[in-house]
Amino acid sequence: MEQERIWTAALVVIGDEILSGRTQDKNVAQLASWLNVQGIRLAEVRVVADKTAAIVEAVNTLRARNDYLFTTGGIGPTHDDITVDAIAEALGVGVEHHPDAMATLERYYATRGGLTEARARMARVPAGAGLIPNRVSGAPGIQVANIYIMAGVPHITAGMLDALTGTLEGGRPVVSGTIGCWVAESEVADLLRNAEKAHEGVSIGSYPFFREGRTGANFVVRSADAGLVERCLADLTRELEATGRAVVPEGI
Amino acid sequence: MEQERIWTAALVVIGDEILSGRTQDKNVAQLASWLNVQGIRLAEVRVVADKTAAIVEAVNTLRARNDYLFTTGGIGPTHDDITVDAIAEALGVGVEHHPDAMATLERYYATRGGLTEARARMARVPAGAGLIPNRVSGAPGIQVANIYIMAGVPHITAGMLDALTGTLEGGRPVVSGTIGCWVAESEVADLLRNAEKAHEGVSIGSYPFFREGRTGANFVVRSADAGLVERCLADLTRELEATGRAVVPEGI
Repeated sequence: MEQERIWTAALVVIGDEILSGRTQDKNVAQLASWLNVQGIRLAEVRVVADKTAAIVEAVNTLRARNDYLFTTGGIGPTHDDITVDAIAEALGVGVEHHPDAMATLERYYATRGGLTEARARMARVPAGAGLIPNRVSGAPGIQVANIYIMAGVPHITAGMLDALTGTLEGGRPVVSGTIGCWVAESEVADLLRNAEKAHEGVSIGSYPFFREGRTGANFVVRSADAGLVERCLADLTRELEATGRAVVPEGI
Repeated sequence: MEQERIWTAALVVIGDEILSGRTQDKNVAQLASWLNVQGIRLAEVRVVADKTAAIVEAVNTLRARNDYLFTTGGIGPTHDDITVDAIAEALGVGVEHHPDAMATLERYYATRGGLTEARARMARVPAGAGLIPNRVSGAPGIQVANIYIMAGVPHITAGMLDALTGTLEGGRPVVSGTIGCWVAESEVADLLRNAEKAHEGVSIGSYPFFREGRTGANFVVRSADAGLVERCLADLTRELEATGRAVVPEGI
């Protein structure tokens, strides 16, 4: 049987505000969930500071070894927004004002005080780039080579992802199913390992929790083969029940 | 004047559950805030899958160019917990059962069904490692070379960080102050750029938001020099007020 092609993406989160602990990132989880539906796996994430060298290094490493590279953050109008320049440098191209982005920003700011020079910065793109519609605010996202440059503010990013839905080539979406069990994961470690081995093509994650003074764990079964996930979950449920522990079919 | 030494740390978040979007990471923000107080800057973060090669690459790159490297995740008792083996491989050392960790686990599990082989896995450490006390559950964290191997579950990580407080050498803590303003950041981009230039040693971040139908931004001033932060905030407040916009001293 031919090996199924796995499509992968990476994400570079650009932002001192994440590294300082000031802001809780939400784009990793948001992008990951969206990619799952597109049949693309989020393979790695890097969070880098607002520094050109750090962005260039991360972008060049990750774009080379993934089908797609996403970035979030650093595309606003202020001095700390250096994503476009850094990515142009990574690609070895210049920066230009995109005419469609200029037109969009002119319309958006017509009733908001006009398109100043600072605001026109948000029309700057690496040479040759296309735009990603921004359905929430003015400045568009940018697509160049296999790189998708997105906003940092999560609900703006969400709108850009929505605009991209269905436009990226991917494989079969990864399907996952979860069962929970009131058991310490250490008690069923062998059982889990054997279940993963017995169902080639699934991965089983084990995620312990402590609730109401009790110990439990959720077991997440993932595969691009929905039938395989279902069979693995059924077997796992039967084996966990055989240990005498309470199983919660949808997880806890 | 001698350049002040900046101490840096990196974090490798190990976990398919973050990359799949199933779990929202909380350890980046938690570690970043804790490091600030220790006078150490979180310089970069990578999120990698539960794969040995990915962990080894991230660990070896980041431990070489930072004073400290932290990892979170993958130190439990199940088959998907491969952090210890991967870090031992990165360091080129073997894996051994740490006698103190064995003793701790024996005590912890004495009233919880006993120390099984799967549970004893949590006493495995890279050869030569020390332990980080776990004040919340049984299995300790691990310290080896400049690497701090922590739990993935945030409240357990928090307990381990608490145990490490004050034990790592660092510089002056980074101080930050925030002011908010009901202004589109694009209207004050030049003002911000000039304020950063005028106060050498500060960085100013600009973080827009949209609330109650209005546009605003928070401006965060950071430096290891508390007096400099205060002066910069005062100047920035005066300049923003001179534009006729409402300034909120503590940020919005």
